[in-house]
Amino acid sequence: MNSAVDLPLGAAELTFEASGDALVRRSVLPSGVRVLTERVPGSRSATIGFWIAVGSRDEHPASAGLPATYGSTHFLEHLLFKGTRTRTALDIAVSFDAVGGEHNALTAKEYTCYYAKVQDKDLPMAVEVLADMLTSSLLDPVEFENERGVILEELSMAGDDPADVANERFFEAVLGDHPLGRPIGGDADTIRAATRDGVWQHYLANYRPRDLVVTVAGAVDHDRVVDALGSALVAGGWDLDTPAAPVDRRATVPALLGGTGRLTVVERPNEQVNLLLGVPGMLATDDRRATLSMLNAIFGSGMSSRLFQQVRERRGLAYAVYSFAPGYSDAGLFGMYAGCAPAKAPAVAALMRAELERVATDGVTDEELVRAAGQLGGASALALEDSDTRMSRLGRAELTLGEFADLDEALRRIALVTVDDVRVLAADLASRPFSLVAVGATDEAAFRGVVDEAPPSTDVA
Amino acid sequence: MNSAVDLPLGAAELTFEASGDALVRRSVLPSGVRVLTERVPGSRSATIGFWIAVGSRDEHPASAGLPATYGSTHFLEHLLFKGTRTRTALDIAVSFDAVGGEHNALTAKEYTCYYAKVQDKDLPMAVEVLADMLTSSLLDPVEFENERGVILEELSMAGDDPADVANERFFEAVLGDHPLGRPIGGDADTIRAATRDGVWQHYLANYRPRDLVVTVAGAVDHDRVVDALGSALVAGGWDLDTPAAPVDRRATVPALLGGTGRLTVVERPNEQVNLLLGVPGMLATDDRRATLSMLNAIFGSGMSSRLFQQVRERRGLAYAVYSFAPGYSDAGLFGMYAGCAPAKAPAVAALMRAELERVATDGVTDEELVRAAGQLGGASALALEDSDTRMSRLGRAELTLGEFADLDEALRRIALVTVDDVRVLAADLASRPFSLVAVGATDEAAFRGVVDEAPPSTDVA
Repeated sequence: MNSAVDLPLGAAELTFEASGDALVRRSVLPSGVRVLTERVPGSRSATIGFWIAVGSRDEHPASAGLPATYGSTHFLEHLLFKGTRTRTALDIAVSFDAVGGEHNALTAKEYTCYYAKVQDKDLPMAVEVLADMLTSSLLDPVEFENERGVILEELSMAGDDPADVANERFFEAVLGDHPLGRPIGGDADTIRAATRDGVWQHYLANYRPRDLVVTVAGAVDHDRVVDALGSALVAGGWDLDTPAAPVDRRATVPALLGGTGRLTVVERPNEQVNLLLGVPGMLATDDRRATLSMLNAIFGSGMSSRLFQQVRERRGLAYAVYSFAPGYSDAGLFGMYAGCAPAKAPAVAALMRAELERVATDGVTDEELVRAAGQLGGASALALEDSDTRMSRLGRAELTLGEFADLDEALRRIALVTVDDVRVLAADLASRPFSLVAVGATDEAAFRGVVDEAPPSTDVA
Repeated sequence: MNSAVDLPLGAAELTFEASGDALVRRSVLPSGVRVLTERVPGSRSATIGFWIAVGSRDEHPASAGLPATYGSTHFLEHLLFKGTRTRTALDIAVSFDAVGGEHNALTAKEYTCYYAKVQDKDLPMAVEVLADMLTSSLLDPVEFENERGVILEELSMAGDDPADVANERFFEAVLGDHPLGRPIGGDADTIRAATRDGVWQHYLANYRPRDLVVTVAGAVDHDRVVDALGSALVAGGWDLDTPAAPVDRRATVPALLGGTGRLTVVERPNEQVNLLLGVPGMLATDDRRATLSMLNAIFGSGMSSRLFQQVRERRGLAYAVYSFAPGYSDAGLFGMYAGCAPAKAPAVAALMRAELERVATDGVTDEELVRAAGQLGGASALALEDSDTRMSRLGRAELTLGEFADLDEALRRIALVTVDDVRVLAADLASRPFSLVAVGATDEAAFRGVVDEAPPSTDVA
């Protein structure tokens, strides 16, 4: 069966089959809480995610006497592990450690996700503990100060990783003042300035039934999860009876981005230059997502890709080289990465841009198209063996896409992509203003020719 | 069933059940080639590994007119992807990319492993291509020079990663002049000095039937793999008829290590200090491995562990903090890691050492013991859902351990561990000379008290 199922925000109950005999069920509770499960026959474990529809893009500057909330989403994610009305931080840690479960959280630009992977027998525990963290965290002031130190160390660790630094600066370079351009975790200044009260307000404002999506994949019984979740949320003080519409993050109006690229060089005495070059890309919901996946596979994913062959195999200029194409609700990026010797960095940047322009003018071959379809299909089939991937796919379907496409449907869409589609999309991307970030022992002058910057403004004295 | 099955090097055929209905089969071909498969019911994919019993520890200095081979094992691993008598580098890449397979290799201290994860239908392809790479690589001189550049970039990337730098230096600090103390990939000097002829000799000397172990887990038919592998190796020119005993890497005689610790500081203008503190540990085959796993779980693995609670949760001093305990054929390490602010690094190092000493004197609680057993059991059960883990477990059983212990047997051994066993082992470890590596904005004087260095020798003028 090829199935793409719409997920209207108001629908109460949906049940449908996904490929591989999996059964997907979705409930929208009156309060706006959404629950999606994917039961995979034969599975002995499950991955569960609690998604809150708030990310770093939703933070705001100080206004009307209220403090800025930059960094608060990630700070709050940390604090939810630090104790509730009935559980200490150690209790929470012990719950998952004692059963060998994986348990963590991540803050992203458009959501925050708390997740766990456990054996089937431990799923009720995971529902209860995660619900407790979401509804009943204390944000204890002493724990708050300890965790400030932990987060500052996390930022320092990222600050010492040149690839991380390049990545943060790249979003800023390509997306400019758009909220998606900001770093996810804030910075040391915003974390030092954060107050317990400010983060508490952020918690109250964003952790509500209408913001919550719970997804589970693997060995799961939908009705039991809905019951257990409802009980746990109510026990945590949430009102599940008052009707509310789920938060809608499925915007499809493209953001207006600036018309010029930016060049950012972070000078460091490193052995390599970490290079990122790219342009504004496609929304998560763009009709051309299948074409974009094919382009990305052919251009920069895998050892047979254009970038790998041209930069690494033929010339030995880099060890790591690839492209990537993340999509968000109202913006996206198309980027290329390489780590290379400082003396070679300008040539590598020019080569990467030229390769994209070559696809834009000369297109790709039928052979590459067939290979990319096989690559995406095979990789997806392997990835779906893991309940983590299925859990994440459900969350993305609900929060971002508004539809669930199973593997067969995804493959059908990929099979429809033509060489001409790929060329036209590459031409569209290559016509957009290129930005570049370089972290390492280099300087701006080296990259002027590769970036579509606005000419420097001349100040009139 | 609790099964621990001996794997004598000379046995021709073995078949036994492992927990979870998996069936393990092992064949030792007359030439010394060993094949182990684990058929997992219901699996639709397989992970295959070709293991060669040679690692960085087997490299040697220049002698008798022959060049040094430092870095050659890793250099050779790269070159095996660069083309055979019948396949170009692109052909090899396309084989796996076209089916969306994962395909890579890793060089370790005691082995080199080439592996692939594919859907069941693609396993014959994986056997054929991997066998071709192993038997028939050209080491083309032009590709050799290109790949030298790639490897230098890989080393530079690692050189820019403070955690990588600390890790390499830590093995050297704890193990000293032992061959396991050397960096796996060599260094820029050894890679610049490497010659095609030297690596070719390394290839001829170490890639022989008696060095090869092939392991497959997932959707696999043992007899078909043995047949296909035999055909592919013979097609590649290998002689599978001449009797030879498999290479034995299961040495259990502990290496004699130096009696003092070492202090290594790599000064860098980083935000964090990357700290590694530790002592010589246990062999891979040590009878106390189950106790060591329990100690490591209680002490430094997971959010409820001693190190996490003391360093991160209570004091907010680090984001990443944990312990680890790798074992090799004749030596091992017990190490603790933390990344922290430079001003706090000496205190964190002292705290970590004191925590191990506290376990050595005060022991652990019954509650911690029960929790750790649950943690190891649950984590192992989840890990074994993945054919990657099973494939690796087979390789380790054959190459290093000489026995295959299934999950039930591993849990039985863990259940036998007592709080006293853990305390005694911690006391043994804590009595060994501590070494420390710090990478960051710090200096040696800060750490003198934490390390059991020999006093500086006084030169008599």
